[in-house]
Amino acid sequence: MRAVVFTGAGANEIVSFEERADPSPTGGELLVQVRYAALNGADLAQRAGRYPAPAGSPQDIPGIEVAGVVIARGETARGFEIGDRVFGIVGGGGLADRVVVHERHVVAVPAALEDAGAAAVPEVFITAHDAIASLAGLRPGELLVVTGANGGVGTAAIQIGVVSGARVLATVRSVDVRRDVAALGAEVIGQSDLVERAQQLGGADVVIELVGAPNLESDFGALATKGRIVIVGTGAGVDAEISLRTLMGKRARMIGTGLRHRPLEEKALAVQLFGREVVPHLATRRIVPLVDRVFPAEEAHAAFDRMEGPGKLGKVLLDFGE
Amino acid sequence: MRAVVFTGAGANEIVSFEERADPSPTGGELLVQVRYAALNGADLAQRAGRYPAPAGSPQDIPGIEVAGVVIARGETARGFEIGDRVFGIVGGGGLADRVVVHERHVVAVPAALEDAGAAAVPEVFITAHDAIASLAGLRPGELLVVTGANGGVGTAAIQIGVVSGARVLATVRSVDVRRDVAALGAEVIGQSDLVERAQQLGGADVVIELVGAPNLESDFGALATKGRIVIVGTGAGVDAEISLRTLMGKRARMIGTGLRHRPLEEKALAVQLFGREVVPHLATRRIVPLVDRVFPAEEAHAAFDRMEGPGKLGKVLLDFGE
Repeated sequence: MRAVVFTGAGANEIVSFEERADPSPTGGELLVQVRYAALNGADLAQRAGRYPAPAGSPQDIPGIEVAGVVIARGETARGFEIGDRVFGIVGGGGLADRVVVHERHVVAVPAALEDAGAAAVPEVFITAHDAIASLAGLRPGELLVVTGANGGVGTAAIQIGVVSGARVLATVRSVDVRRDVAALGAEVIGQSDLVERAQQLGGADVVIELVGAPNLESDFGALATKGRIVIVGTGAGVDAEISLRTLMGKRARMIGTGLRHRPLEEKALAVQLFGREVVPHLATRRIVPLVDRVFPAEEAHAAFDRMEGPGKLGKVLLDFGE
Repeated sequence: MRAVVFTGAGANEIVSFEERADPSPTGGELLVQVRYAALNGADLAQRAGRYPAPAGSPQDIPGIEVAGVVIARGETARGFEIGDRVFGIVGGGGLADRVVVHERHVVAVPAALEDAGAAAVPEVFITAHDAIASLAGLRPGELLVVTGANGGVGTAAIQIGVVSGARVLATVRSVDVRRDVAALGAEVIGQSDLVERAQQLGGADVVIELVGAPNLESDFGALATKGRIVIVGTGAGVDAEISLRTLMGKRARMIGTGLRHRPLEEKALAVQLFGREVVPHLATRRIVPLVDRVFPAEEAHAAFDRMEGPGKLGKVLLDFGE
């Protein structure tokens, strides 16, 4: 197989592209042939040495999700046949053209979704769905705020909010992509206008925070009584100052999340819930994954640069070829 | 009736004791004759001008709970008879010998509980039970940490944790009362030993924070994966510095709470759950309220001084006489 490899910790100087022996599926695992693989913020954190893969996952091959075709099965795997298209999450090793994954960590890709679109889905939609539905318990009619909403998780969160019957308010820094984000069904504003606009709308019931600590003061200002802030991304900083008076006065909740280091059964639960509650909307195209750009897998360094830059709209993919 | 009255905002110079006209119960309300009334941290905050009573409650008479005998009923009240002993919560006006309260905001006092003990129960046990059971969802076998555990809410929280099948670790600053707190069923340590001891025990699943912002760094350090911190008291400060990396890495939750400003139906729900899940243990004396000291109601200023001082063990009461 061919894979993106991190040879240490740092920036693009530690990113290489290598030929490796194919992994073998055992037990309930599947071997998946991959055409497209998507990057995530987690890969940037891992490149910097801040986010190692969990034990049992490949340590030097980044990538936390998989989409492709089943080409081999472990001896007890029985949920899929050879040739089935699947997508889901892995602890590591996703940026490769062959990936081993447990069969309960994937679900079937609907026929309506082409391969590049499928690759843009699992990590960000599972993360957004888990945060919105399972952690925050969003209810129809509530006001969902998504901050830094133009990336993969943000564009997923907006669409999940819309199909869940919520009103959705999104903050986006780059003015260039605000219209595209609004087309997903959100009202789009800058973070500096969040408190005033959210309060005009009755206060935010759920905030999906994708930027980090600098946003928290305005997030809390925007919150309604019993509002919930789920911390999903912290690229702009992790050291937050919180007023416990506001937290108590609003009876608010602040919830931290992350998929990668969960026990296997909790990951399987999140994936299967995504299969039940999000995939049907992908099948009817009521939810549509957004692909920002596709880079040849050998040019992973350029893809990482794009990930770090501003103004993305959806996911950055690697193409491993036919 | 006779009542403690706040004539402004400040310290004990604004505390007076006055004769007022009796309040009248209407609708589903009861008029309760009170012998003993308990102080709470909320009364100190209200005295300082920081915690006004909600609209519809007496504004200048402090006191957020009631225990006593029903002496009159509104025209639609039907849950209790004249002469029944009840206890529960009010938005204000509790530090008086006659208090009006909605019948869904009280439950019956068990016969095993004498009047002073009953007065020491409602606010702190309802607060602790709501925080532990409804907000944090404590499960049997989990490790419950209660900080600053020698006061009213703390001694209630320990006992609710014990009857719920949790292991309980309590932090208490004053060495003098640690043995008494331990007798409630907790291991008692200083806050500075919390991180090490909690981690030895597998990490804290639930922290009931009763001191405030200065404790949060050690609270988070003590937390297990998926741990929940409920912020109930903040006497030592409200400006907290939080690491979102820790919050995410532990998939932790920080939850703010307060009973006083909830809508009436949410207060009723908390009181009725307390009636079902705590009162049976008061009836069998498996849970016992702690009374620190009783002051004549006319000496409320001395009772407030005691509330502010260190080393309390349970509740400070006012005695309105027979």
